[in-house]
Amino acid sequence: MTSTDLMTPDQAPLSNDTIRAQMAHRTIRAFTSEPVGQETVTTLLEVARHTATSSFQQQCTIIRVLDPQVREQIHLASGQPYVGGSAGELFIFVADQHRNAWLRERAGADLAPLETANLFLTAVEDVLLSAQNVVVAAESLGLGTCYLGSILGEPRRVINALKLPLRTFPVLGLLVGHPAHEPQYKPRLPLSVTTGVDSYPSPAEHAEQIAAYDEQVQHYYDLRDSNKRIDSFSNHIATALGVGRAAVSDVLEVLHEQRLCLR
Amino acid sequence: MTSTDLMTPDQAPLSNDTIRAQMAHRTIRAFTSEPVGQETVTTLLEVARHTATSSFQQQCTIIRVLDPQVREQIHLASGQPYVGGSAGELFIFVADQHRNAWLRERAGADLAPLETANLFLTAVEDVLLSAQNVVVAAESLGLGTCYLGSILGEPRRVINALKLPLRTFPVLGLLVGHPAHEPQYKPRLPLSVTTGVDSYPSPAEHAEQIAAYDEQVQHYYDLRDSNKRIDSFSNHIATALGVGRAAVSDVLEVLHEQRLCLR
Repeated sequence: MTSTDLMTPDQAPLSNDTIRAQMAHRTIRAFTSEPVGQETVTTLLEVARHTATSSFQQQCTIIRVLDPQVREQIHLASGQPYVGGSAGELFIFVADQHRNAWLRERAGADLAPLETANLFLTAVEDVLLSAQNVVVAAESLGLGTCYLGSILGEPRRVINALKLPLRTFPVLGLLVGHPAHEPQYKPRLPLSVTTGVDSYPSPAEHAEQIAAYDEQVQHYYDLRDSNKRIDSFSNHIATALGVGRAAVSDVLEVLHEQRLCLR
Repeated sequence: MTSTDLMTPDQAPLSNDTIRAQMAHRTIRAFTSEPVGQETVTTLLEVARHTATSSFQQQCTIIRVLDPQVREQIHLASGQPYVGGSAGELFIFVADQHRNAWLRERAGADLAPLETANLFLTAVEDVLLSAQNVVVAAESLGLGTCYLGSILGEPRRVINALKLPLRTFPVLGLLVGHPAHEPQYKPRLPLSVTTGVDSYPSPAEHAEQIAAYDEQVQHYYDLRDSNKRIDSFSNHIATALGVGRAAVSDVLEVLHEQRLCLR
């Protein structure tokens, strides 16, 4: 495999500018100091605002982080070095049932529905659909993005830093900026393993495809450390889940403190 | 407000083909009988496959529904008439920790991390980011889309119909097809209400903007029934949450049966 192969995105049967950019997606973890600019930030927030919303409930709130002290708290919550400093715009996407609770209280309606897992999941839907819409828009403008699911490592710190009220939860962060590196594409599990027709594609029946994929992955280098080859996918899953910050994260406890996903 | 205004999407400060389509997003609930075609389906699945994935865990599995009997079960689970019949491709996006559980069992690693809310949320992230990527790609090809969060109304029926194993959960459905109607845009809460800088934007401090938005919304007509004006947003939230199927949905119970989000 040549180094050119490693940099070339896969092809889809149909293509256009939008799909080409989607197929070329890579996580960018280093940004130049060039500002993203207010017009771009407003454009990204407008795209988020026009995303589909579950049952017209509009449960996504986005916090833009500009204060270095607030950013430092997000950095500490995420545990990721590239969140520190000031390169890249930082947004936190919040599942927000507080706004609708306020509207219901004002109207004398009860708050019980807002405490169900069902409604919590619809809020999470609003948040994540908006986040991906923002990522696609940013990449269409030549910017790079990095999701920070890592803020789930210490959600209370994020809640305190952003003064998030009851019935809100910071689902993920997002860095957007001008790329300062060009990492390799990372191959993904083949569609034969991850998609089915009419029923679930059993992994046991796809052991051969998974073995071939494991082999393929080991030819690539890590995005964060260009001297380190990627572990096979199977080894990664066997060893990297539930260790480090994820092992001590208390997401469910914090959700309940926030009066979310209670029943 | 003229009928032309009602059909014109908002403008963002910056634009290109991708962003123009994102700003013009509307839910399409009626499709022609023209097939989407295999090339398009493969393209959409490839776009899903290239979406960001939390900690390289690849926890999204997509089931394409072709069997009319399976589709009828999804129709019944969703309770939405437009899911019935055969117009539009139907996909179910599944949060999948079964595949990684299988890999861990095979390697002799314990399954406890897969039962945390933390890891469940990362699987939900993978699923919803992929779903929105598919929606953007479909719309860039001139197709219409309709999310089916409504399958949360009866998740056990979906699990049975698709033979989903333990540690999987059907988060949402998606219809994709050639649009057979051109519904109005539905205005969204203004950015002053839904975004903040460094801290949470309190709804109580934005009561005036919410009142103005309530007024604006009432000029629009419902997407599903063109003779019916939309309720104000405040009234909608006060009256429409936790009623009907959402009131009897047992999402948390089903998650626990599936061994997800247990602690």
